[in-house]
Amino acid sequence: MDVLLAVREWGETRWLARLRPLLPDREILTPETLKDHASVRYGLSWRHRPGEFQKLPNLLAIFSLGAGVDHTLADPDLPNVPLVRVIDPDLTTRMSEWVALQTLLHFRQFSRYDRQQREKVWAEDEDQAAAHEARVGILGLGVMGMDAARKLQTLGFDVSGWTRTARKIHGLTAFHGPDGLDELLERTDILVSLLPLTSETRGLINRDLIAKLARDGKIGGPFLIAAGRGGSQVEADSVEALKSGALKGASLDVFESEPLPKSSPLWDLPNVYISPHNAGVSHPNAVARYVAAQILSFERGEPLQNVVDRARGY
Amino acid sequence: MDVLLAVREWGETRWLARLRPLLPDREILTPETLKDHASVRYGLSWRHRPGEFQKLPNLLAIFSLGAGVDHTLADPDLPNVPLVRVIDPDLTTRMSEWVALQTLLHFRQFSRYDRQQREKVWAEDEDQAAAHEARVGILGLGVMGMDAARKLQTLGFDVSGWTRTARKIHGLTAFHGPDGLDELLERTDILVSLLPLTSETRGLINRDLIAKLARDGKIGGPFLIAAGRGGSQVEADSVEALKSGALKGASLDVFESEPLPKSSPLWDLPNVYISPHNAGVSHPNAVARYVAAQILSFERGEPLQNVVDRARGY
Repeated sequence: MDVLLAVREWGETRWLARLRPLLPDREILTPETLKDHASVRYGLSWRHRPGEFQKLPNLLAIFSLGAGVDHTLADPDLPNVPLVRVIDPDLTTRMSEWVALQTLLHFRQFSRYDRQQREKVWAEDEDQAAAHEARVGILGLGVMGMDAARKLQTLGFDVSGWTRTARKIHGLTAFHGPDGLDELLERTDILVSLLPLTSETRGLINRDLIAKLARDGKIGGPFLIAAGRGGSQVEADSVEALKSGALKGASLDVFESEPLPKSSPLWDLPNVYISPHNAGVSHPNAVARYVAAQILSFERGEPLQNVVDRARGY
Repeated sequence: MDVLLAVREWGETRWLARLRPLLPDREILTPETLKDHASVRYGLSWRHRPGEFQKLPNLLAIFSLGAGVDHTLADPDLPNVPLVRVIDPDLTTRMSEWVALQTLLHFRQFSRYDRQQREKVWAEDEDQAAAHEARVGILGLGVMGMDAARKLQTLGFDVSGWTRTARKIHGLTAFHGPDGLDELLERTDILVSLLPLTSETRGLINRDLIAKLARDGKIGGPFLIAAGRGGSQVEADSVEALKSGALKGASLDVFESEPLPKSSPLWDLPNVYISPHNAGVSHPNAVARYVAAQILSFERGEPLQNVVDRARGY
């Protein structure tokens, strides 16, 4: 009933310290301390080395230690057992905090007032738009997208969303499919991407998509707010759009290469806010509790929760 | 049935342009163009010159063009007619935007990540607190305080409030009176002041009050977020607290002297965000519509809305 923790370069020691008290009656092993491959029933993955789970004949399930599973599915030798992802109110709340903060930063012209403060200038924009005049478009209406949508609506924003398959959502304009995406973009001042990384979303946010965003809005946009996965964006296109003015600002939490290289022009572009892929990081304590609780309930005969559909990719 | 507009140094020409189409059948005069004092029925005030409304024998009502009326009540010769203040969903929404933005800036350690961005450092705080671990205390539970409280609750914060008189509020811990203020402060990591300026609130936010704020919280506070009126704060005490670390950061929209003088140390203090008294500025178009609508409904025989209790001061 052992557990294999495979979290390349991501706080292995701290994960062990969190997990052991929660699962006291079993061994938590790492690829380095693993001896008896047949003893392992559960794999815990964060960017594990491809093939690491392949030689475990009695593996029952794999848990991704984050909301995304693209890093786990990237392993071509991933065993065909249930793959569980984290869906956790704590993570969802944090992601919505970040989305609300970034939306408000752009909407309330933070960089203008920040510059004025540095220059000791007292001046206000008497034409500051009202929230209902700011059209926010959310790509991805899963648990996180919906939570962000509802909170932005509470703050007064005019929110729409786009989702893979048609869905009727009370009180929210939801578009779907390729045509729906164009419809969303042309009425969007602030684009919020919370998409998982799949074959369908890879490179979706590119020059063509940015060109379709609204330029007739009252808030001087368009702006891009991106969390989720860096692979959904063509980063060079975002840089070009920010330089040309096709985008008036951005908040980026995810990048094609992480950590973002020091050579990236994004660090220095005006009205761009960079965060180190921590928009919606769940507290590791909460993730550890979630995984331990799932293992224990699974062993009592209950079904695993939040199992990934591998064909869909999330 | 004329209207006297007395808005010292605050866009007189633009106010005239907004009001005239809304009240086409009457004269909108300024102190400079006023000739027939007996013709004026309504006064519109923003920091009007004391005495300006005194010589209007047929004055029926005075409208403050903002939520606060301290600037109007400061006139010792203010005629004893109903004084109306602006309570407007647009203004309330904007104030809550600002409160949410500033709360999130401090809570999500914006200044840390901003500094890291300038230094091109990729590093996250793995112990970032959850919103429910951040205790926000709101001073003033009027229309604006309640709206901000509800929105901060939606974002996940642990919100309490303090109000002048005892009040039972569903789902919100509300303290009142001097003892209640101390109770609120000792459980507050982020203090949000939305108080009107009255004899009771003048200088309330001073060194003693700051000393009572919680220092055992998980978010590294305490922080002060102040809108409303600068007179509610002893600014020198805030400066000292920010320098000594008694306050870990602040967001200040109002000041004892406005515009904030270039000599003020507040401009340069770390983790302090200055805005030019525009946290909850209603769009002047909305204020003009509000005032015009009240004048017209009053003349149809309906009572004036949001009349100030002069003894209470708001």
